[in-house]
Amino acid sequence: MYLNLNPEIGHLYLQVYSAIRDMIISRELKDGTKLPSIRSLSSEYSISKNTVSNAYYQLEIEGYISSVEKVGFFVNKIDHLVQLDSDSEESTPISEIKPIYDFSFSGVDSSSFPYSIWRRVFRETVNSEDETLLRQGDPKGLYELRDAIANYLKNSRGVSTSPDDIIISAGTEHLFYLLRRLLGENSKYGFEDPGYAWGNEFFTYDLKSAAPIPIDESGIKISDLVREDVDICLVTPAHQFPTGIVMPISRRIELLNWAAVENRFIIEDDYDGEFKFSGRPVPALKSMDVFDSVIYMGSFSKCLTPSLRISYMVMPKKLMRLYENAFSGFGCPCSVFIQKALTTFIKDGYFEKHINRMRNIYSGKHELMTGLLGKINGLKIIPPQSGMSFVIELKKDIDGESFAEYARKNGIGITPLNRFSTIEENSNPKFIIGFAGLSKSEIKTGLSALKDLINRI
Amino acid sequence: MYLNLNPEIGHLYLQVYSAIRDMIISRELKDGTKLPSIRSLSSEYSISKNTVSNAYYQLEIEGYISSVEKVGFFVNKIDHLVQLDSDSEESTPISEIKPIYDFSFSGVDSSSFPYSIWRRVFRETVNSEDETLLRQGDPKGLYELRDAIANYLKNSRGVSTSPDDIIISAGTEHLFYLLRRLLGENSKYGFEDPGYAWGNEFFTYDLKSAAPIPIDESGIKISDLVREDVDICLVTPAHQFPTGIVMPISRRIELLNWAAVENRFIIEDDYDGEFKFSGRPVPALKSMDVFDSVIYMGSFSKCLTPSLRISYMVMPKKLMRLYENAFSGFGCPCSVFIQKALTTFIKDGYFEKHINRMRNIYSGKHELMTGLLGKINGLKIIPPQSGMSFVIELKKDIDGESFAEYARKNGIGITPLNRFSTIEENSNPKFIIGFAGLSKSEIKTGLSALKDLINRI
Repeated sequence: MYLNLNPEIGHLYLQVYSAIRDMIISRELKDGTKLPSIRSLSSEYSISKNTVSNAYYQLEIEGYISSVEKVGFFVNKIDHLVQLDSDSEESTPISEIKPIYDFSFSGVDSSSFPYSIWRRVFRETVNSEDETLLRQGDPKGLYELRDAIANYLKNSRGVSTSPDDIIISAGTEHLFYLLRRLLGENSKYGFEDPGYAWGNEFFTYDLKSAAPIPIDESGIKISDLVREDVDICLVTPAHQFPTGIVMPISRRIELLNWAAVENRFIIEDDYDGEFKFSGRPVPALKSMDVFDSVIYMGSFSKCLTPSLRISYMVMPKKLMRLYENAFSGFGCPCSVFIQKALTTFIKDGYFEKHINRMRNIYSGKHELMTGLLGKINGLKIIPPQSGMSFVIELKKDIDGESFAEYARKNGIGITPLNRFSTIEENSNPKFIIGFAGLSKSEIKTGLSALKDLINRI
Repeated sequence: MYLNLNPEIGHLYLQVYSAIRDMIISRELKDGTKLPSIRSLSSEYSISKNTVSNAYYQLEIEGYISSVEKVGFFVNKIDHLVQLDSDSEESTPISEIKPIYDFSFSGVDSSSFPYSIWRRVFRETVNSEDETLLRQGDPKGLYELRDAIANYLKNSRGVSTSPDDIIISAGTEHLFYLLRRLLGENSKYGFEDPGYAWGNEFFTYDLKSAAPIPIDESGIKISDLVREDVDICLVTPAHQFPTGIVMPISRRIELLNWAAVENRFIIEDDYDGEFKFSGRPVPALKSMDVFDSVIYMGSFSKCLTPSLRISYMVMPKKLMRLYENAFSGFGCPCSVFIQKALTTFIKDGYFEKHINRMRNIYSGKHELMTGLLGKINGLKIIPPQSGMSFVIELKKDIDGESFAEYARKNGIGITPLNRFSTIEENSNPKFIIGFAGLSKSEIKTGLSALKDLINRI
């Protein structure tokens, strides 16, 4: 037997293994063929018997050959595997020019991220050489973190809850994904229109039954929830996305009363409830949840950084029991390292300080935006202009997407409102314009450039 | 109007706000009531007009009152909200006594975790003050990490792939969850029996169509896949869980040929492919995937620590296109901090060193286990005894769950095999017994205790 040994493969036994394997695959060695004995191959190639034995052993455990005691080694029968040309097509990455002044609604102020504190927090976390750092831990998330979140919610959002009712996960989409499965595929979902669910295919993809629910000046319209026979509705009461409407108490109560029926639930996404720039933050809808039918979602994306990927929900007790039965094997998707570090960050008071600091920073930017946008002719701010982005209307007869594209090419990123709505736009185009990710001087220059663009059309 | 001010609430304006709000909720102030003017309330209570104005403003944005210009402030009509006693029932945490010698199959050697390297890696990661650290980033996961994984797979598992074909997620269950949705609810799933899917409700919960597929001495039986008309099968070819069977080349080819049909896919979970204690690791099934029908799943749980929560899959190109269309808004669940740190850990060569070191450590424990288990009368190791756990049979006429419970009460954790099977056990009970999480001396003491327990029954 001629062995085509290739020294690049590494260990000599692997060279022998590989040479024989290739002969079997190429059918040079037919099935049933008896291989040379270990002794004879060893002396033929002047290699140790151990090397040949290792190669044969590897071939055997991979199933290429079989050994028959005291008789020898035989090539196994192996099906023919059709060799196709591998698909050499390259997937082309979508390259998009990032605008210079990105007034994205999803931006955060990354220049204010407390790097040095996080270095310290990570160092402390790994320093502790705490063995629990290496265990996968509770499927609902680290108990200490859930405890820290429960305290935070009580003080900041008026929500009385216990760590037992909290599930930690990795982003609003993941929470929604869990809920979808938990609540069953036959539930009918109602999403605010306009609302973020209509701008992210993920929310409605493959959903059997979802209805757009119009909003009026107080938020989601209860009459339409009833008319559409919705089971689960997703709302953003702190600042309706994208309009910024703060849901008033009367509508909150109407909504809670709507949900006081078996198997109806409200999903409250409190994505930026911390950031209110006039008056104090309105307590969460969940704080009034006497029927235990509000699923409260929170996240550290807006108030810290989206790259942490930590979100959480406070579950009604009946749903939590269902979750514990069905999802005990699911496991929390968040790294225990990050969960521990975030726990320290909250418990040591850094989080509260950070929020207060960011509220001031964002408040300053909000004021600047209000002033500058008010001075641009041909543009109107649509009230209530609360929250982390504004809705503006262009008093021009132009298509929203075309203008956004034109602006993008000129370095300005703004988002047409109709991307988040199922309603055909039949008036002047509206846009969502955020400010969190830009510095004050970028806001000034960016809005001045936007003004020029508007004058030009 | 009498205001019941409560100084514990904080700011004076919040005390005023809160007092009026409570009167509105309790109907002491009926809807339509005109509130005192700012000036008169201010002089009545000797508080600044600004304070009253702030309180009224807050009441207005929360919808409790309305202002009519030049006329004054009026209480809004608010629906009655039924006040229920809040559910005071406490959820009782399931407290389980953790065995002293936990021969769990899911353990890892945490005493060997490279803490000091991780401290360094985290420090470098946060030190860089890299702005991409704060962005949510690519929904498929950090490009650099996918690149590092592609290199690793090529060198260690024989899989040629590109970063574009890799998706990073947080645990096998999360990967499976994605796939379930991507492959549609109408596909029929085949799971190895015994196999881990039958031991974790998560995998089969709510699945329309799933079949247990028996395994023989070469692994999953192709004839049963055909007979059951399966579309998607999940296999563990490196070491079948829990039997440890290494799928031989003939069965691998049979399986690949089975999947060479449109809409049939193989999910290869290579959960511990790195750890083979005799011979070199068998290349992954994916390395022979000429039909592009193998979905390869890998994870850092076994080879580093489950608490990282990072797993990944290599997708067939046709599925990747589907994913990119449907899941672009989903977002990778892994914190960018952890992804960056892991990238450094792999690129700087620490990962390979760690794997080699762990292979030695586990190999030593494996040898020790083989020797000691072999000496216990009334117990038989079921071959092939490869991988990170053994299957043992107790030559006693006793129920598996009862013995496991008896062992647990005596400080020994072992897992009845039948928890992972739909097949009724009609012979002696079998158990899965892992060793990764125990030190050598714990293995010695633990197995000696197990021996005593067996002798006593």
